[in-house]
Amino acid sequence: MKDKPTHQPSEPTADAMPLCGRQGARTRLADRGANLANLRMTPTQSLAQFADIVAMTAGRAHVNMSLSTAFGCPFEGEVPDAVVLDLLERFEQIGVRRVTLCDTTGMVNPAQVKRLCHEVKTAWPELTLTLHFHDTRSMGLANARAALEAGVDCFDASLGGLGDCPFAPGASGNVCTEDLVHMFEAMGYDTGVDLDSMLTLSRRLPEIVGHEVPGQVAKAGPWTRRYPAPESVGEQAAAYRLAGSCGGTVESNATGQGSA
Amino acid sequence: MKDKPTHQPSEPTADAMPLCGRQGARTRLADRGANLANLRMTPTQSLAQFADIVAMTAGRAHVNMSLSTAFGCPFEGEVPDAVVLDLLERFEQIGVRRVTLCDTTGMVNPAQVKRLCHEVKTAWPELTLTLHFHDTRSMGLANARAALEAGVDCFDASLGGLGDCPFAPGASGNVCTEDLVHMFEAMGYDTGVDLDSMLTLSRRLPEIVGHEVPGQVAKAGPWTRRYPAPESVGEQAAAYRLAGSCGGTVESNATGQGSA
Repeated sequence: MKDKPTHQPSEPTADAMPLCGRQGARTRLADRGANLANLRMTPTQSLAQFADIVAMTAGRAHVNMSLSTAFGCPFEGEVPDAVVLDLLERFEQIGVRRVTLCDTTGMVNPAQVKRLCHEVKTAWPELTLTLHFHDTRSMGLANARAALEAGVDCFDASLGGLGDCPFAPGASGNVCTEDLVHMFEAMGYDTGVDLDSMLTLSRRLPEIVGHEVPGQVAKAGPWTRRYPAPESVGEQAAAYRLAGSCGGTVESNATGQGSA
Repeated sequence: MKDKPTHQPSEPTADAMPLCGRQGARTRLADRGANLANLRMTPTQSLAQFADIVAMTAGRAHVNMSLSTAFGCPFEGEVPDAVVLDLLERFEQIGVRRVTLCDTTGMVNPAQVKRLCHEVKTAWPELTLTLHFHDTRSMGLANARAALEAGVDCFDASLGGLGDCPFAPGASGNVCTEDLVHMFEAMGYDTGVDLDSMLTLSRRLPEIVGHEVPGQVAKAGPWTRRYPAPESVGEQAAAYRLAGSCGGTVESNATGQGSA
């Protein structure tokens, strides 16, 4: 187990290349410590292998490059923005037009997300940029919103917030898909995702995987969920409405009705 | 139980008034449905009682007015900004200079938070404004950051994320204090809070309350936590360093060293 890479790197053979579909070959290239742990290669070794893969696709498939631990490494600490920007420049040189920046162990904060995403979007406005967050330290949705503010509109996520990583100590699952969709929809964005169907699926997860999952909207319901008012409130509210107030605005008369 | 108010409203007697301390009398005034459920009074009745309380303090204590379900009510739905702004105007007229806007059942999203906080801060720049979030739908920290962006720097929170509300179906505890502090510190703010001590306390909570608590930083450790690299990585990294690369920057040579 110790000597087995967690993520088997894509072999640079033509057989490994899907020739159709929206997104094709995908491997990982991370900061040094995590890259060695995950793939048993240095980032440069990964990059050289990836250049072969990109060349082999010859434009027949979209290639997305995922940068693990792009914001911080649990072994080596903070990853300076300059490291990421330098790697993205190399990606461009080998023909990569799609990149995912991964906060593999949930170390990043919204200020860092917004800063780096802004730098990347400014330098490569045509790049298809995806962000990949984990909710390890409760900042998952705050980070997603920070990325959105910087113009990012592609996100990795997992139903119910399932998942972890054996080489990322303390890592929790990806940010929860339905919680992410719910936030964006509540903010007025059209995600194109059927949230209700997603919630139905998510509610089946605990039975399937045999344990609770982190997603919260599946438990609480979306913010649009309404509850019947307690009976006593109904009586008071009725009297109160008769007294001349209307829903949605603050009443302007203290009438003293009800049992308070 | 049904006829008993959850939050016993403060009696407007001089005995109920603390005469020292930074913050004194505190009651709640909410949207109509939740106010009736919680206090068995209409908001206007609460306001009239509160005016008596404020008058009684005669400047001897700071009075903070908490607006429950200020962003949405689980019985009646969305609370328009105009309702909140109208109430704040009335608060000002009776001499209230400190207000807490509460998202009692975790319905609000970051866009709504930022918009309303900006409106309030613009209209009453001298008001001491506190925000009170619940993490019911995973948006707690995203909402806190949105409030911060609008200039809010006071937050209600609870250690470990403890708490709920019997009259707010689906409500979880307040946003977790140490997770909130951790995010702001990671973003570069000096909160003045000793995070390490707070984490030590929080880690004792499950034993004290007899169940897990939602806070995540107490489980994962702060983002500054480092782990020893797996042994195999250490060997490869050593070889890799000998080959001329340096920490914190991307290596510029593919040397093929290591066991990849």
